[in-house]
Amino acid sequence: MTLPSKTAILDRINLPSDLREVDDRDLPQLADEVRAAMIDSVSRTGGHLGAGLGVVELTIAIHKVFNTPDDRLIFDVGHQCYPHKILTGRKGRMTTLRQEDGLSGFTRRAESEYDPFGAGHSSTSISAGLGMAVASKLQNKPRNVISVIGDGAMSAGMAFEALNNAGALGARQIVILNDNDMSIAPPTGAMSAYLARLASGRTYLEVKDFTKKITSYLGKSVDRAISRAVGHARGFVTGGTMFEELGFHHIGPIDGHSFDNLLPVLRNARDHGRGPILIHVVTQKGKGYAPAEAAADKCHAVSKFDVVTGHQAKAKPNAPSYTSVFAEALIEEARHDDKLIAITAAMPSGTGLDKFEDSFPGRCFDVGIAEQHAVTFAAGMATEGMKPFCALYSTFLQRGYDQVVHDVAIQGLPVRFPIDRAGFVGADGPTHAGSFDTTYLTTLPGFVVMAAGDEAELKHMVRTAADYDEGPIAFRYPRGEGTGVEMPKRGEILEIGKGRIISEGSKVALLSFGTRLSACREAASMLNASGLTTTVADARFAKPLDHDLIRQLASHHEVLITIEEGAAGGFGAHVMQFLVNEGLLDHGLKARQMVLPDIWMEQAKPEIMYKKAGLDSDGIVNTVFRALGQERVSTGTGTIG
Amino acid sequence: MTLPSKTAILDRINLPSDLREVDDRDLPQLADEVRAAMIDSVSRTGGHLGAGLGVVELTIAIHKVFNTPDDRLIFDVGHQCYPHKILTGRKGRMTTLRQEDGLSGFTRRAESEYDPFGAGHSSTSISAGLGMAVASKLQNKPRNVISVIGDGAMSAGMAFEALNNAGALGARQIVILNDNDMSIAPPTGAMSAYLARLASGRTYLEVKDFTKKITSYLGKSVDRAISRAVGHARGFVTGGTMFEELGFHHIGPIDGHSFDNLLPVLRNARDHGRGPILIHVVTQKGKGYAPAEAAADKCHAVSKFDVVTGHQAKAKPNAPSYTSVFAEALIEEARHDDKLIAITAAMPSGTGLDKFEDSFPGRCFDVGIAEQHAVTFAAGMATEGMKPFCALYSTFLQRGYDQVVHDVAIQGLPVRFPIDRAGFVGADGPTHAGSFDTTYLTTLPGFVVMAAGDEAELKHMVRTAADYDEGPIAFRYPRGEGTGVEMPKRGEILEIGKGRIISEGSKVALLSFGTRLSACREAASMLNASGLTTTVADARFAKPLDHDLIRQLASHHEVLITIEEGAAGGFGAHVMQFLVNEGLLDHGLKARQMVLPDIWMEQAKPEIMYKKAGLDSDGIVNTVFRALGQERVSTGTGTIG
Repeated sequence: MTLPSKTAILDRINLPSDLREVDDRDLPQLADEVRAAMIDSVSRTGGHLGAGLGVVELTIAIHKVFNTPDDRLIFDVGHQCYPHKILTGRKGRMTTLRQEDGLSGFTRRAESEYDPFGAGHSSTSISAGLGMAVASKLQNKPRNVISVIGDGAMSAGMAFEALNNAGALGARQIVILNDNDMSIAPPTGAMSAYLARLASGRTYLEVKDFTKKITSYLGKSVDRAISRAVGHARGFVTGGTMFEELGFHHIGPIDGHSFDNLLPVLRNARDHGRGPILIHVVTQKGKGYAPAEAAADKCHAVSKFDVVTGHQAKAKPNAPSYTSVFAEALIEEARHDDKLIAITAAMPSGTGLDKFEDSFPGRCFDVGIAEQHAVTFAAGMATEGMKPFCALYSTFLQRGYDQVVHDVAIQGLPVRFPIDRAGFVGADGPTHAGSFDTTYLTTLPGFVVMAAGDEAELKHMVRTAADYDEGPIAFRYPRGEGTGVEMPKRGEILEIGKGRIISEGSKVALLSFGTRLSACREAASMLNASGLTTTVADARFAKPLDHDLIRQLASHHEVLITIEEGAAGGFGAHVMQFLVNEGLLDHGLKARQMVLPDIWMEQAKPEIMYKKAGLDSDGIVNTVFRALGQERVSTGTGTIG
Repeated sequence: MTLPSKTAILDRINLPSDLREVDDRDLPQLADEVRAAMIDSVSRTGGHLGAGLGVVELTIAIHKVFNTPDDRLIFDVGHQCYPHKILTGRKGRMTTLRQEDGLSGFTRRAESEYDPFGAGHSSTSISAGLGMAVASKLQNKPRNVISVIGDGAMSAGMAFEALNNAGALGARQIVILNDNDMSIAPPTGAMSAYLARLASGRTYLEVKDFTKKITSYLGKSVDRAISRAVGHARGFVTGGTMFEELGFHHIGPIDGHSFDNLLPVLRNARDHGRGPILIHVVTQKGKGYAPAEAAADKCHAVSKFDVVTGHQAKAKPNAPSYTSVFAEALIEEARHDDKLIAITAAMPSGTGLDKFEDSFPGRCFDVGIAEQHAVTFAAGMATEGMKPFCALYSTFLQRGYDQVVHDVAIQGLPVRFPIDRAGFVGADGPTHAGSFDTTYLTTLPGFVVMAAGDEAELKHMVRTAADYDEGPIAFRYPRGEGTGVEMPKRGEILEIGKGRIISEGSKVALLSFGTRLSACREAASMLNASGLTTTVADARFAKPLDHDLIRQLASHHEVLITIEEGAAGGFGAHVMQFLVNEGLLDHGLKARQMVLPDIWMEQAKPEIMYKKAGLDSDGIVNTVFRALGQERVSTGTGTIG
């Protein structure tokens, strides 16, 4: 379905320079067209819908007013960048979104000069924008730098750090706070539009400049910005907004769907702005598409859908997702132990903790996009004898790494870390891949690090973590569905640091950590069929290692291969360190270490990514043959025998 | 020197329960005694002086008013905890501070029940306190939780994340903002004391409760706290302080050296407080000791000193410190390239960038305690063609890890990371050890990771990093003095991914990464004297690895040992992965991997730590003999031959 009658203006626009030729009065029509084009393309590809629909007018207004790409426009997170992509030369490729070799679902420097800073994780745009603004000043190349950041992203500490620094440095930078938490009800609408015009008028800026002179006098050093806010305490000074306390000129709130509001405010900021400016824009997530406006999540992320009904096509699952297995297992354990609590950082549904919250409303804590705080909050809980499960995606746990080291691990506190989305994540691409957690956790003394071989194992690990009170413990599991194994009603408590043998052979040993176990099983049957009898073992623990198991595998096989869905320096590295330092490789055992390749792997379907990474059954078999110095008798890419 | 006449009250105090018996009127005398005892003990041990002197009255007042240890008292960072240690049963051990087997320089759970949460890194105390406060509520065990945090620490994002969450959760928690940025001049003094008594009075609390009812109604969800602040924009509501916007009851500023101010405010908070309270206390760093009050840094951290004059004993250095070599080299490179800029996160003197700032005032950026922002700010700079050097301690770079991954590495941006304090740090202990950087950086695709073998090498690496524009590059170097090697006037550009041979042998190969190179040289001469001719190689790069060099070492020696001052999963792990996957260990080469032991090593002199870690020359020699299955002819711990 294309909507030819609806894209008369958009058809003439390839780049923002074309958009700048469009008359202001025609922009609402263009907004309708962009919205229709976006709905049409996302209905075919799936992706992030609600956020983009909310910023159609804002995106158009920014490109109309500012001279992108020479002026730098940075979208925080990137969920909302589809209208931007449509308007910056990528209209024709929107149907390739989030697919192999297609457009990224986020902004990306490599993709377009209109994407000066890539995103994926939240709350980075003010810091990046400040760097650009300062560079522009140092290089004497005046330009505008605009960061568009959502209200949710403002809860992350790094956004605050950036505001605090920007206020002190006083560089020319525009931050657009895209506030879609509140809908635009009549009381705000008219009044705020009036105030916005007033606030962004020349007169107002001059009055504000006077205040700014005082504050810039006070704000000499970095820490002064916060000291100043502190110094304003208790009515000595009539308090401004929080952003003004931090040294920003603050405009708004204004209606982010009204060009009559947006254009004069942006033009004023462009022509008369000095120092940091924060423009508070109120938008409606999912705006202009009835099914999105009606949905509780405003169609944040969708699969392919029917444009008329909004009905999303969802494939019937073959097995429960790891996320739901985790959530159910945690609920089960919480029934047995009222000290068990759950913590998430703005991902209640992504981590499955929304279900936990339904069952135990007082025992689930969503701290917002604030992973650093989430980890140390959990550590504080643990000191008081609670059993906190701090559930994050692998890629987001990176943001709490120092807290994991300093507040949890050094103190040996029993915080549990369920790590979702460990390994490849498919369409979300490299910014969301969970590649490094095994490496950055196993290097920490006293940490227990597990990975589930299948969804039943995950259930055991939830119970094991609930039971284990000696120190920090993490367990990783991937995005997506389980393998369909039979599920126990309740998980068992695993012995810490003990793996298991899945099947026994005598020539080759495959030692798996995590869900590549299924590929190992397949590889083993291929190898057995070739006469290379193969042992498959599931390490379960990357730390502590099962030394007995490793010794046994090393002593009774000719080849020993570790396999994991993680980057170098993790499970396999610890196994190899053990093997070399125990002298187990001194006498001819052929060890090999299979890890993620040392590149940023692009978005694709997971099966394709496994193949490219050499971590599918075929890749494992090839590694065995190469280790043995044998030619593999190829039978194509399928299973042998 | 003891001061017997000055400790009449302190002599009677072992624990806070004793302190609670002291009459309020005698507390100023006690403060004088604690101050004198602290000056006396730090004069003998060295350590953090200024911060502790500033909080003597505050610490006494807290222990007097609150029922520690059942009430939880958390000191942020821990620099200021010496008076607390003196008052909580550790008076007699203060002379062991920061020494092997002695008291930690920070709070520490293992050390005392009066230390409910350990510290070292800044800005963690509000998160930890909130965890404890919520746990107390869930367990129905009412108690007070008090976090003492400095104004500098408030610039870190995680403090903001915690305030934001605390305001939304509304748990009973007391945050004491210890503001020592401003001195107590007469205008603040009298007025603030008056306001403090007023603000903490019962009447005021009731008025505030009304406001709180409204805000707690609005503040239903986590993100609401910030939305609310946003909603207050532009004078709809008379703005409160920033802390009030975030849902805190805000008291102060009050004079933190006056018991007449402190005691009623703290008692009011104890008896009438509900929900989160922030008490803003103004103190003077270095208070009560003239040399500290007069010093620019208020005697933040000192070596042993003369109590009367304040003169610090500093040993004459044998060689320049790595930090100063770095700073001078960076200044030299900046003279040749005006795009080179420097970034630090509140450590200008610790990183040596204060000297850079003197030479290039406009090109040095201190962003405050804000490592996340520092990294992404640098990334923004790099997108505009600047050459940012983001200089952090190894242990603090952990706090910017996600930004290193997501904003720098995935985008392949040429940000330079000089990593100071890599490896053991001696008296600061495990919270400050730089153990993990090689591991968590080498696992990232496209990163270049170097370590300096000596101070001349560091100079080369600064130049190499300045020259390298292809992507991210890090170089690590330790705390302390160099080895005294001859220094080039300017560093050379090293070939990326190429190591060097230091000396050649034929039996044993020692492949060093970093400053353990000197121990390798010593070990080699011991081994050569024993007839085991030894090659010493300096890898220079952990990433990319020098494959030719490793192949050469593997082919021509019987034993190959990697040595580094870093935890498992780093340099040695990458070497072993290469060796096994290339089949270089299939035929009898004995490889061994020497890394930091898998424990949190306690404070001690570095030489002692190296010995314990087995990373001294003796430990290397022993590893060689064990690998060869030979008995070492012991000649004590000294060198052989």
